[in-house]
Amino acid sequence: MDVTTALQKFRELQETSHAYSHALGVLYYDGATTAPAASAAGRGRTMGTLAGIHYDLTAGEETIKLIDFLKAHLDELTDVQKREVTYFARDLEYTASIPKEEFVAYQVLLNDAEDVWRKAKNENDFDAFAPYLEKIFDTNRRFAGYYKPDMAPYDVLLNTYEHGLTMAQCDAFFAALREKVVPLLEKVVAAPKPDTSFLQGHFPLEKQRAFSDRLMELMKIDRSRCAIGETEHPFTTGFNNHDVRITTHYHEEDAVSSMYSVIHEGGHALYDMGSADEYEYTCLAGGVSMGIHESQSRFWENIIGRSEEFCALVLPVLQELFPENFANITPEQLYKAVNKSEPSLIRTEADELTYALHIMVRYDLEKALMEGSLTVKELPAAWNAKMKEYLGVDVPDDARGVLQDTHWAGGMVGYFPSYALGSAYGAQMLAKMKEDLDVSALISAGETDKIAAWLEEKLWRHGSRYDPDELFLRCCEAPFDPKWFTDYLTEKFTKVYNLV
Amino acid sequence: MDVTTALQKFRELQETSHAYSHALGVLYYDGATTAPAASAAGRGRTMGTLAGIHYDLTAGEETIKLIDFLKAHLDELTDVQKREVTYFARDLEYTASIPKEEFVAYQVLLNDAEDVWRKAKNENDFDAFAPYLEKIFDTNRRFAGYYKPDMAPYDVLLNTYEHGLTMAQCDAFFAALREKVVPLLEKVVAAPKPDTSFLQGHFPLEKQRAFSDRLMELMKIDRSRCAIGETEHPFTTGFNNHDVRITTHYHEEDAVSSMYSVIHEGGHALYDMGSADEYEYTCLAGGVSMGIHESQSRFWENIIGRSEEFCALVLPVLQELFPENFANITPEQLYKAVNKSEPSLIRTEADELTYALHIMVRYDLEKALMEGSLTVKELPAAWNAKMKEYLGVDVPDDARGVLQDTHWAGGMVGYFPSYALGSAYGAQMLAKMKEDLDVSALISAGETDKIAAWLEEKLWRHGSRYDPDELFLRCCEAPFDPKWFTDYLTEKFTKVYNLV
Repeated sequence: MDVTTALQKFRELQETSHAYSHALGVLYYDGATTAPAASAAGRGRTMGTLAGIHYDLTAGEETIKLIDFLKAHLDELTDVQKREVTYFARDLEYTASIPKEEFVAYQVLLNDAEDVWRKAKNENDFDAFAPYLEKIFDTNRRFAGYYKPDMAPYDVLLNTYEHGLTMAQCDAFFAALREKVVPLLEKVVAAPKPDTSFLQGHFPLEKQRAFSDRLMELMKIDRSRCAIGETEHPFTTGFNNHDVRITTHYHEEDAVSSMYSVIHEGGHALYDMGSADEYEYTCLAGGVSMGIHESQSRFWENIIGRSEEFCALVLPVLQELFPENFANITPEQLYKAVNKSEPSLIRTEADELTYALHIMVRYDLEKALMEGSLTVKELPAAWNAKMKEYLGVDVPDDARGVLQDTHWAGGMVGYFPSYALGSAYGAQMLAKMKEDLDVSALISAGETDKIAAWLEEKLWRHGSRYDPDELFLRCCEAPFDPKWFTDYLTEKFTKVYNLV
Repeated sequence: MDVTTALQKFRELQETSHAYSHALGVLYYDGATTAPAASAAGRGRTMGTLAGIHYDLTAGEETIKLIDFLKAHLDELTDVQKREVTYFARDLEYTASIPKEEFVAYQVLLNDAEDVWRKAKNENDFDAFAPYLEKIFDTNRRFAGYYKPDMAPYDVLLNTYEHGLTMAQCDAFFAALREKVVPLLEKVVAAPKPDTSFLQGHFPLEKQRAFSDRLMELMKIDRSRCAIGETEHPFTTGFNNHDVRITTHYHEEDAVSSMYSVIHEGGHALYDMGSADEYEYTCLAGGVSMGIHESQSRFWENIIGRSEEFCALVLPVLQELFPENFANITPEQLYKAVNKSEPSLIRTEADELTYALHIMVRYDLEKALMEGSLTVKELPAAWNAKMKEYLGVDVPDDARGVLQDTHWAGGMVGYFPSYALGSAYGAQMLAKMKEDLDVSALISAGETDKIAAWLEEKLWRHGSRYDPDELFLRCCEAPFDPKWFTDYLTEKFTKVYNLV
């Protein structure tokens, strides 16, 4: 085999691999948004078959040989080709390190665990879920050991979602956050609460759907590339840079819950749509890590969407669609209402200030479970103790406690820190952006496309060309520092709550 | 290889083949209903890749060897296994008879032809489409020759959609229809027309969507297995008997256009959902032919949906949703209005009586084109002459003439007769059904599930276990005879139009 032939084969492999991912993605999306209820078993069967073929394709012997050959000839490749090979090899090496029968057994376990978790959550029955959770953590520990026997298992997992991330970095990051956020939150809790009563009422679905379209318009999202659907839990999925889907969940009694879901998922979608054409149908297409992805979604949701300027921009739309609730509301009232902060039980409903504390609880527990210093049996009590410690709240039951998130049931151990990291990345990006743009003025003028253009240039167009730390460095021209985030939070919440 | 191993391999092959069909089906459905506009190219690329892999899987050398082995051991198989092998072999032999590069070139041609046809139709420009149409007919003639060199090419094509069907049978069928329908239509044309003015008005989409749900309720369609979407042209697609999708097209000014689409597609869906579990994930799952499929859709649309009893059943729903139009309408007025018959230009809008005449035009022309007695160049003039001869109408332009249907652009030559055959099958099935059930009373009582149960027992549950002629014989206990259909039409339209 010569290098040209190998590259040709590698390109075909990536295209075929993409076709399977695309099909599996559409099957999943269709299942979540459109498919009739009884279709799950048949879809599971088809997805299982295709996922198995996809596994053999991307981690089979022939592929291992091909990638080994290309790795032995890296010197003859362009920089982009080198990155393609090493990036592809990472997933391959992880997957290939796991015996196939264990890999398949794990997929079956996750499939069952999802159902068991849902039921356990509904019935507030942690014991029913515990054996599955134990197996999931055990399997993750074992798999991490197969892949990188010399690395701490939890570091291996953190790397899956944010390449290069370590526990040492997370510890420092969360310590810095805790130091600033906890005293800030204490002041916020002691201050008078903003009025949020006008956010509640009756908001018919049809009007909320129209509102979603208007929000996407304000974000300048190209609708010919981005569709919106409805699901229990909002999410984004992209098949290529011309085909991205977001979903939201409408609550008839609440106008802003779906609003911030649409803006958050819209941020993910913009990132996916901004990936350069040159990387399409290769492994470098699309976002590089969950941390960078969350930085974009949370940038749009919080930094833009919960800014004073955006509140002024969106208020006339709210007044037009829901005059009963918003006719007499000022931009400042809206701004304060959507930034109301208070310790609460549920992560997905947490405000910008307390959100990271919810993540810290999960980080501490995941870390302890992976290190073996905590058992699954002890987990509910440990959860409740951490919630009390960081947020000062008493957890009334496991359904609103340790069972609330789907991540662990889905095998996503090590994912949570990306949410907090993403928020913090975004604050530092904002500071950098302000060197080039008058961000406030652009939002006020509705010229969010200029903000998007900056993000596209610095981040989106690069797809997975650079690892997250390198991409961040290229964008911000400085290493990541959580002080930008804590400064941002301090300034914002001091203002919202008139603190001294 | 022993037979047990071969059967095991064959079962796996069918399951894998089904997974590809399922994925391709969902990609197509998603593209037609949900996907953003700019997603077409990426989806085409993925579908092309997967279709190529699917082709290699179902028509590749290894599969040919496997099927040859099983065919040599048919004596050792059960009846169902024999049928699986011979039924699977039919498609395989057809596909394998075509050189792969010609097969692929044809897919590319069809892909382009679809776009060219759409444009040609919009711009009333037959000449733009003619070269594509010529290639499509040429290719079909050539492929038919590869597959069955000793058979007339058009017979080969008719067999693709209705196994066992010949030109001789079609000629006799259409002659019998013509003999009865043409004089009946003359009387209808001379009679006073029923009032249909109340069918026009303003029918908001949201209410029409609710109406679709009510119609599916009246048809006792299990919504946990059947979803409804919206597309330009209504269609049905089924992935397994627990996952069927229908679509409709809403016209804001017309209440019954979508109503009859929903009932028609609902009939297809019931057939797909009725296929027995034992055949799932094998090649025997789902409907056996287009003729039988259309017999079910047109049975529900016309025989049930356009009956006096069903009109009485659905009228209160129309009155509830659209009181402005229907408050003062009687069941008899509705019945007469939805059965208004008159010669027209467009097949898809034709009534039950004139519909078969539209099919005859297409049948005659396809036959002549395949035999070589007509050229594509001569086609528009020939179309117009046939329309004048059978329906007495003057075709004003090709857009409303020879360019109106998508079938030929899609390569579906030989498909049209199934529509007329299906209608006629249905009338004979009705006669047989009446020996067991009081059909009128059941519709009046809203007990359409008992009608469905009869059809399920006689037809649906058998999936593709029997060829269409055998299935028909098992259901009706008599060979197909068009007299049941002409009698049915004569009786119905004599009544609707008070003819003597």
